[in-house]
Amino acid sequence: MMNYFRPAIASIQGYIPGEQPKRGTPIIKLNTNENPYPPSPKAIEVLRTLDSEWLRRYPDPYSRDFCHAVSEALSVPKDWIIVTNGSDDLLNILIRACAEGKRKVVYPMPSYVFYRTLASMQAAQVVEVNYPQDYQLPIDELVAAGGAVTLIATPNSPSGHLVPLDDLRQLASRVLGILAIDEAYVDFADYCALSLVQEFDNVIILRTLSKGYSLAGLRLGFGIANPELLSGLFKVKDNYNVDAVAILVGAAAMKDQEYKNNCADKVKRSRGKLAIDLSKIGFQVRASQGNFLLVTPPGDRAAAIYQSLKEQNILVRYFNLPGLDNKLRITVGTDEQNQQLLQAINSTCNF
Amino acid sequence: MMNYFRPAIASIQGYIPGEQPKRGTPIIKLNTNENPYPPSPKAIEVLRTLDSEWLRRYPDPYSRDFCHAVSEALSVPKDWIIVTNGSDDLLNILIRACAEGKRKVVYPMPSYVFYRTLASMQAAQVVEVNYPQDYQLPIDELVAAGGAVTLIATPNSPSGHLVPLDDLRQLASRVLGILAIDEAYVDFADYCALSLVQEFDNVIILRTLSKGYSLAGLRLGFGIANPELLSGLFKVKDNYNVDAVAILVGAAAMKDQEYKNNCADKVKRSRGKLAIDLSKIGFQVRASQGNFLLVTPPGDRAAAIYQSLKEQNILVRYFNLPGLDNKLRITVGTDEQNQQLLQAINSTCNF
Repeated sequence: MMNYFRPAIASIQGYIPGEQPKRGTPIIKLNTNENPYPPSPKAIEVLRTLDSEWLRRYPDPYSRDFCHAVSEALSVPKDWIIVTNGSDDLLNILIRACAEGKRKVVYPMPSYVFYRTLASMQAAQVVEVNYPQDYQLPIDELVAAGGAVTLIATPNSPSGHLVPLDDLRQLASRVLGILAIDEAYVDFADYCALSLVQEFDNVIILRTLSKGYSLAGLRLGFGIANPELLSGLFKVKDNYNVDAVAILVGAAAMKDQEYKNNCADKVKRSRGKLAIDLSKIGFQVRASQGNFLLVTPPGDRAAAIYQSLKEQNILVRYFNLPGLDNKLRITVGTDEQNQQLLQAINSTCNF
Repeated sequence: MMNYFRPAIASIQGYIPGEQPKRGTPIIKLNTNENPYPPSPKAIEVLRTLDSEWLRRYPDPYSRDFCHAVSEALSVPKDWIIVTNGSDDLLNILIRACAEGKRKVVYPMPSYVFYRTLASMQAAQVVEVNYPQDYQLPIDELVAAGGAVTLIATPNSPSGHLVPLDDLRQLASRVLGILAIDEAYVDFADYCALSLVQEFDNVIILRTLSKGYSLAGLRLGFGIANPELLSGLFKVKDNYNVDAVAILVGAAAMKDQEYKNNCADKVKRSRGKLAIDLSKIGFQVRASQGNFLLVTPPGDRAAAIYQSLKEQNILVRYFNLPGLDNKLRITVGTDEQNQQLLQAINSTCNF
């Protein structure tokens, strides 16, 4: 019998999804960096009143209503925007459009593990360059790796650090391929790299509504780059990748910048407070520009604490990977959730 | 400067989307085979009352609520189901998982033109086998072509014919690769091929909620095959390809089989009536098992009629392709819409 699948697919591991508890499970979910606050009431209102005609018909392949909202909110021309089914869809499109075999995918580590999965599907060579301990961007090594796509997440997960604009600028000017700047967590950060798309025709900025806008369930992301770069990506994008509900609900959320900024401010305040509280009980805490903290519990007890919290219905993220296996990544919840987390840690560890 | 894109991508044409009129345009849209009736009121009710918590959180990677509804409605085990962002997403996953270079994509023509686009992205060889005039399935040629994936749309668009089960059975038993049976239009047909997934481990059935369930705007499709075949496809599927709204709204629509069947019955009655009315004014009309008719206007006037209808705000589909360029594909609308179409044709052609 024929081997049904391509060798590149047959050889990769089956997908093991993150923990997404079933509906109705009473849980404090601090493992996948969702925003603890609900989406904008204006977005919910659109959902409640949506004309069923927009379900019946195929959606707009260009998501123009949403593009319009992005264009207004971020002051970018509409034809510099590509709209996708979450930013994972855009990462997929980008890597599929550019990478295969010796057309490499390059990124610093640790970062978003999904980059490797996407590169594997293309049977593209992967070069992972380790961040030094101080998380300075290893520009020379990244350039030398010669990626068809070089990916930089900033703020980066799980480290939470923000890459200085001058480092990104240097990288953009020196790589021969595309530089993708993955700004999933930008709404919690001090600055963004958006201006670089005007300086460099090989730069694309990736954004999502899953974090700052509290719309992870809606699947909506977008990219910003010059139209010539986007033209190649549009060839790979599925015509109807974004549904009509996401286009209209997402547009309303994008227009409500004030609500999003208020929620992000609350998260940032709670992040500071949680960092102090965890430090007080002996955790090492990295400064973070995302909606999460990377922490090192005392006494190499990361795995044990992860497990104990899980038993108490609190999910945090434990990466069983070199350099991370003594750490936990904790999504910043509401102050109340963070207090419950601290209590649970205290009761576990008897600090 | 580096060529940013893979040669396979650089060489394909940019995507030219079908005509999707802007919101608010008064138009009779009979060009992309949407159902003329609204989605189930029970599905709309779910949209109206959806807990915003399901927007805030990532969706279930396995769309289990929807799988459950499919399992009940079609009497298939839940682990025989894969849920996708429309059936286009599933076609994409399937071809990406199986095809590249000499791992060919094979299908009879004319059929869904998107198959070629997907194969091109994989730089996979394509073998298109022409249907004979009577649309008998060219089994020997399809088998001889040796596809890693062989795709059969049934009911087929634009012809509207249904492939006999015994022909599919023969094909399934003789091809070495996967046989994908694309049943997008099955809700308007006399029978389906679902039972073949139990007979053959290389068969996958593709379904969508865009046609029978009037949910083209929601982007929801699914596949049915044995779990071993699905395991390869799950590796390529994006974790969060289907959003939380689609999962819950789609589940409600799937549960409301009675509503869907009533709408499909109305469409089938209107299809018969429209076929007679068009025949009366000299159109050649193919018998159809879909929610559309492939018709040949008298006097080689297909292109002219398409254009004239468009000027009258009625969209139908004209394929400027060999063997089809004297024909129109007309989606079956409500009886009222079909009457308006007939009047517009009459006023154009002075029949």
